[in-house]
Amino acid sequence: MIRSIDVAGSNLTIAWEKSAPENGGSAVFPAIWLRDNCRCPECRHAGNGQRLYEITDLPEDLAIGAAVLSDDKAVRITWQPGGHVSTFTPAWLADHDLSAEARRGRKRPVKLWSKAIGTEMPIGDWRQMVSDPAAELAFLDTFHAHGFGLIRNSPTVPGTVLQIGNHLGFVRVTNYGALFDVKSVANPTNLAYTPVGLGVHSDNPYRDPTPGVQLLHCLESTAPGGDTLLVDGFNAAEILRREAPDAFDLLTRVPVNFRFRSNDADLMARQTLISVDEGGNVVGVHFNNRSLDWLDAPAAMVVPWFAAYRKFAEVLHRPEGELIFRLEPGDCVVMQNDRALHGRTAFDPSKGSRHLQGAYVDKDGLESRARVLRRQIAEDKGVAA
Amino acid sequence: MIRSIDVAGSNLTIAWEKSAPENGGSAVFPAIWLRDNCRCPECRHAGNGQRLYEITDLPEDLAIGAAVLSDDKAVRITWQPGGHVSTFTPAWLADHDLSAEARRGRKRPVKLWSKAIGTEMPIGDWRQMVSDPAAELAFLDTFHAHGFGLIRNSPTVPGTVLQIGNHLGFVRVTNYGALFDVKSVANPTNLAYTPVGLGVHSDNPYRDPTPGVQLLHCLESTAPGGDTLLVDGFNAAEILRREAPDAFDLLTRVPVNFRFRSNDADLMARQTLISVDEGGNVVGVHFNNRSLDWLDAPAAMVVPWFAAYRKFAEVLHRPEGELIFRLEPGDCVVMQNDRALHGRTAFDPSKGSRHLQGAYVDKDGLESRARVLRRQIAEDKGVAA
Repeated sequence: MIRSIDVAGSNLTIAWEKSAPENGGSAVFPAIWLRDNCRCPECRHAGNGQRLYEITDLPEDLAIGAAVLSDDKAVRITWQPGGHVSTFTPAWLADHDLSAEARRGRKRPVKLWSKAIGTEMPIGDWRQMVSDPAAELAFLDTFHAHGFGLIRNSPTVPGTVLQIGNHLGFVRVTNYGALFDVKSVANPTNLAYTPVGLGVHSDNPYRDPTPGVQLLHCLESTAPGGDTLLVDGFNAAEILRREAPDAFDLLTRVPVNFRFRSNDADLMARQTLISVDEGGNVVGVHFNNRSLDWLDAPAAMVVPWFAAYRKFAEVLHRPEGELIFRLEPGDCVVMQNDRALHGRTAFDPSKGSRHLQGAYVDKDGLESRARVLRRQIAEDKGVAA
Repeated sequence: MIRSIDVAGSNLTIAWEKSAPENGGSAVFPAIWLRDNCRCPECRHAGNGQRLYEITDLPEDLAIGAAVLSDDKAVRITWQPGGHVSTFTPAWLADHDLSAEARRGRKRPVKLWSKAIGTEMPIGDWRQMVSDPAAELAFLDTFHAHGFGLIRNSPTVPGTVLQIGNHLGFVRVTNYGALFDVKSVANPTNLAYTPVGLGVHSDNPYRDPTPGVQLLHCLESTAPGGDTLLVDGFNAAEILRREAPDAFDLLTRVPVNFRFRSNDADLMARQTLISVDEGGNVVGVHFNNRSLDWLDAPAAMVVPWFAAYRKFAEVLHRPEGELIFRLEPGDCVVMQNDRALHGRTAFDPSKGSRHLQGAYVDKDGLESRARVLRRQIAEDKGVAA
């Protein structure tokens, strides 16, 4: 609850009561920020919430004419010039606090992992997930924290991967089709379609945009070998940052090309091996030795870049980072493609079968799904999300 | 052709003959870079060209043991330790020169435009494009230079937009489906589905990844109004850089959230309004007043960011930047969604019809298509691409 408000210059300052959840303290909101957050039906479409004005429609000399605390402790601001009125509830203001502490608190937790994750793997049961929104949300939350998750007990019917993908998000059709069969074939267009072992990698880094999430669904798994390897690319990047900060820095700054050619495609994308956000947090790792194109960088960057790349590869290949498990029929591993790097051990197709089906879905679809489920569950409980 | 080669430390230096196309001069190639570009069948899969080793498989103390010019003027290098041999043709080395000049020369030209583009609009004829690879490639080249293109003479049959999209690239299914109908409806989920005018914007900046290319295909166009507006966001960004460099800089550094909520989706993406590459070149513009979320940035950034945003909006709304034209049935405008911002004038649905169908395709699909066509055309001429 709000104890008092104060206008100084172009800022509104709110002093909170010493009760939960704000627990005293204060929050500062700039005038233009508040005005642009007006939710009145003149400013936002009542149905879809979209903004109905352009920023240039607001007065350039905008100022808080008056700010009062209404009887229900909402803040009512009258703007000058023009006299437009905006109202903000205490709950909304508390949720949108711009202080460094509040902004940190809103960050989604990232749980780094290594081989030691072992028995605490993020696992969901498909039959539960499709019948219980809370089970599906729990899976999505652990998926978002770890960058991967294993779904068990899905049908062992070809095409199931599309059913799972379209349930969780939007399947993205690529040059490999809506789904692709991972098994050993003659004349493979990609090394994935051979029985050789594959070091951990991101899929399709030569796509712009690179697929955000990959699903691999197991239909058959009797061939010896072919175990799945997963490495947390974010954890590896943090290890690199500690052990070789200059190498880390270089890999976040020098973009490289990835490329894939086939009869009907010639795909190229340019990106850094490690991406960081404006706060320096690791937000993406793309690594693929097979499709890294020739290094098109200034000559002086070449030797340091290769040294950094080698160091990062060495970190990624450390056994203590590798989670190894076997996909059984009905299992579907869901991987954030720019974080959970995957590979496999070699397998022997002469002694059994190994058949996976894969598909890509957009990363934000799974995040949207989690928000929608959270909203539905809250509504079912009669609580506003 | 190569005149001579020289090994100094870990670099190979090539002196070119004074004949075309290299015209004298020299080029320096670092040893590790050359080794990683070995195309022998041990290093690359003969079928698909993918790399068969990890960077950590190369010796850490790699050095050029010997480098000789073969009789056909190719460079043959024997590596130490290990004795692996790599061969590079003069043409390949010339194409992969790492000098600043050579790297600049390989950049694809970007042609900035404004209203004045008028009669020089990039236009393709669909019937020609599907029958003549050279016509299709010419359209794709002008599309890539300008960030948009207009296809005429396509069928006026519903669903044609998917046919065009899947011909040029890969249609991306979104929360709006594989295609979406742009016409005035009751209870719209999006302001696009009303008759109001829309300021220029990027579509779906709340998607991660944001759709790279949008197609809008016209089926009916008898309602008064509803003309299409296009603005070159790259040109606007360059104007901003000249007129207000600090504002430009801020918009490249401070990411903002975009968000869209409906019954079955709650999509959010975080990105800067202007993206630049490592050389400072503008490579992306995302602008959408309707779906810009509240500014979740440090409080001290708020006032300068809004000032920069207002200035950029003012530049984007200048009439001299606005290309205005009318889509007629059978026309399909193809827009690079992070460059060619689009809008429309208001229309009167009581006095006629306006029905467009839209779809999104991945940006790299059109680039792949252009490379494949270029390769095919070269092969048909008996020339290696």
